[in-house]
Amino acid sequence: MLDTSARNKLIAIVGEEHFKDNQEALISHSYDATPIYQEIPDAVLFPGSTAEVSAVLKVASEHLIPIVGRGAGSNLCGGTVPVKGGIVMVTNRMNQLLEIDTDNLTAIIQPGLITSNFHKEVEKLGLFYPPDPGSMSISTMGGNIMENAGGLRGLKYGTTRDYVIGLEAVLPSGEIIRTGGKLYKDVAGYDLTKLLVGSEGTLAIITEATVKLLPAPKVKRTMIAMYEDIYAAARTVSKIVGNRIIPATLEFIDNATLRVVEEYNKLGLPTDMDAILLIEQDGMDLSVVEKDIKEIINICKQEGAVDVKIAQSDEEATKLMQARRGALSTIARIRPTTYQEDATVPRSKIAEMVTQINQIAEKYNLQICTFGHAGDGNLHPTCATDARDKEEFHRVEMAYEEIFRAAIDLGGTITGEHGVGLIKAPYLEWKVGRIGIEIMKGIKRAFDPDNILNPGKIWPEEIKEGEVHDSTFS
Amino acid sequence: MLDTSARNKLIAIVGEEHFKDNQEALISHSYDATPIYQEIPDAVLFPGSTAEVSAVLKVASEHLIPIVGRGAGSNLCGGTVPVKGGIVMVTNRMNQLLEIDTDNLTAIIQPGLITSNFHKEVEKLGLFYPPDPGSMSISTMGGNIMENAGGLRGLKYGTTRDYVIGLEAVLPSGEIIRTGGKLYKDVAGYDLTKLLVGSEGTLAIITEATVKLLPAPKVKRTMIAMYEDIYAAARTVSKIVGNRIIPATLEFIDNATLRVVEEYNKLGLPTDMDAILLIEQDGMDLSVVEKDIKEIINICKQEGAVDVKIAQSDEEATKLMQARRGALSTIARIRPTTYQEDATVPRSKIAEMVTQINQIAEKYNLQICTFGHAGDGNLHPTCATDARDKEEFHRVEMAYEEIFRAAIDLGGTITGEHGVGLIKAPYLEWKVGRIGIEIMKGIKRAFDPDNILNPGKIWPEEIKEGEVHDSTFS
Repeated sequence: MLDTSARNKLIAIVGEEHFKDNQEALISHSYDATPIYQEIPDAVLFPGSTAEVSAVLKVASEHLIPIVGRGAGSNLCGGTVPVKGGIVMVTNRMNQLLEIDTDNLTAIIQPGLITSNFHKEVEKLGLFYPPDPGSMSISTMGGNIMENAGGLRGLKYGTTRDYVIGLEAVLPSGEIIRTGGKLYKDVAGYDLTKLLVGSEGTLAIITEATVKLLPAPKVKRTMIAMYEDIYAAARTVSKIVGNRIIPATLEFIDNATLRVVEEYNKLGLPTDMDAILLIEQDGMDLSVVEKDIKEIINICKQEGAVDVKIAQSDEEATKLMQARRGALSTIARIRPTTYQEDATVPRSKIAEMVTQINQIAEKYNLQICTFGHAGDGNLHPTCATDARDKEEFHRVEMAYEEIFRAAIDLGGTITGEHGVGLIKAPYLEWKVGRIGIEIMKGIKRAFDPDNILNPGKIWPEEIKEGEVHDSTFS
Repeated sequence: MLDTSARNKLIAIVGEEHFKDNQEALISHSYDATPIYQEIPDAVLFPGSTAEVSAVLKVASEHLIPIVGRGAGSNLCGGTVPVKGGIVMVTNRMNQLLEIDTDNLTAIIQPGLITSNFHKEVEKLGLFYPPDPGSMSISTMGGNIMENAGGLRGLKYGTTRDYVIGLEAVLPSGEIIRTGGKLYKDVAGYDLTKLLVGSEGTLAIITEATVKLLPAPKVKRTMIAMYEDIYAAARTVSKIVGNRIIPATLEFIDNATLRVVEEYNKLGLPTDMDAILLIEQDGMDLSVVEKDIKEIINICKQEGAVDVKIAQSDEEATKLMQARRGALSTIARIRPTTYQEDATVPRSKIAEMVTQINQIAEKYNLQICTFGHAGDGNLHPTCATDARDKEEFHRVEMAYEEIFRAAIDLGGTITGEHGVGLIKAPYLEWKVGRIGIEIMKGIKRAFDPDNILNPGKIWPEEIKEGEVHDSTFS
């Protein structure tokens, strides 16, 4: 519960209509797209400007009220669940595309702007903002920045952090900091811009961002390659890149996923295959793209693809990609709870990783569908389950713990693009070690000495003694 | 002076032959490629392994001895001058290329590896590591990482930070931290990898790095465009990019530079021109590259280029690029001291910036040649002077202070690729503000609580009261 003085101050800042603490508002902001986690906040705020965000943070600092920044709440790590109560601050009123600068190839946006709306505006000018997380039709740019969102184009084009070159952000004290700018090169001190990207709302609240844009590719070709053996599919992925071709998209879909997607969507997918690869190449010149696709087809066949098909039209390409883009929502229709993770390994380890995921699924008697961004080793083992079945859900948790362990043992990481949030906090030490966590906590203190910004996230509250695992340290 | 106990421990760690405190060693490590700054260290160490670096840092922590990491000392910001004495630790024995992984398109290197040697090995395999700082034939990869080195290919390919995806580094405590890995996506906590890149030796000593590689472009075309008006040249830069073409190189050379380079090198440069642009495009396909070059030529002519020439052979291309690559060393032949800076502005502000530099040079009666990476707004105003002439050198310092101010006022930064080091520490606040510096100091404390790593760099020791300038803060 907020005390009356704090409550009155906050209402005075954002206005009655943008301060909510009725049951509906509190409950609908008590969870996000992640299953299981829920905690009721004390209030939900919808600030309309940087000045309001600053004033809210001053009050929060004074009264030591936790602040959870929130875009669309589409994250998959429990990142916006207000586990310590306090205020959920939603940025959806600050949703303007402030500028597209075609001389400098930059855009300036507010955090509440919907990602796919931004894509559309940029594309109208023949420009391109590559990050395309699965949730892009509802996710916000601010959320993407806080989670360093990836997507299907990561291999060729990188992720959100590669595109953010300037930020305006509000510190817990209410002070406003500006980092970077319309600058392709800037080495004035530590790179606070890149540090804030992916900081999961724990260091500052972003109120404006400057991002780089690229010239839009003019042509694209989409193809599918089918395999009776996942190792052959995985070898193909390494071989394509090893042959110095970087496709725009290089997605993997396993048999379990194929069967579920086909059952519900009737796309004509080959459900007898062990795996398929969905491959897109884009570029400025049709002949170059077609040359790449031809070479990719040769590699697919050499590595044992049973069949290869090129989409003959945009509609057909969209339909093929639908098998991948719709996988999560289709799996979500099978059972009440969908548990998706994003363990990531070096590209060359994908087959081993998928094999281990399948063994783990069998061991714990679970249905785990695996698909994902094979080109950058970023897999999405996705379990259809029911969180209300405590016995089964315990098996799910044990299975994912083993999946994280397997990823780390293969030189990978516990999270490639979803963030740590609540769900992976217990495992962070496996990747970054105890000293890595200590350094991160020191960075947190530099920004947020009173721990009011999204408390309880990224690392566990207490690192339990006796639970130290092998880390990546020598 | 090191106390005897510390000295003995250090000798025991690296061996007699890799510990030096004779006059020659101390003097030759008392300065770097930056003019003016010099300070004699207490010892120079050449460790041979991560374990030795770790042991040295433990001793340094125990005895509170400053440690300045050093590669080739080719930096231009005074970054490796041991202003607080202590130990200069040179990484040139740790110079191995440990692995090139063609499946994952990554390489693992030690910090002492010479940049251009790395280029050569990578290129043998048809791969490409883009960062190409001017000093690449002597600079080390570790130095490049610590300064986030840029180069001529920044616009199209980015800078060092864009390629470093994993680090092994030793903290002041001697503890070894590993960040990232062979991973194109990794969001497990704050991005310590990107934070360490560009940290100028103040947070940790790097002992190993994993970097991304690209497929090497197969073809390249080089051209030159000549202008009687720098505004026309600058407009061309924005127009090329505005036309959705990103050249591999887009360099600007002003008249002052042209005259000096031509006088000493007799390359046949048009010394009657106000400015020239040197443009390279590369790619996988000749027809596409030639299409781009054709379009670029059209834009150059539309914007008022007096003449345009395409190199007809590799030799001619090399000769053209020599005008740019050799500019700094040629200017260095004119007078005893060469003072080069790297103020950077948004691409669209280049003409204004060059005009202001020329006005400032005139005001202070100095010879300032300006050339640089126009495509990314990263200019190198370079002054031929004599540091022994105190009156003149005072004018140089005042002129550069005005240049930094002008860059900031145009939405730019005080340093695009050289780093802050000693030389720009007094001006950092203009770019990042007082609170930005406070945050950076907090980050520094998280890594190096006793301030033993490269002390006295990046920000001034004391921020003097009464010297607060307008900052970028609202």
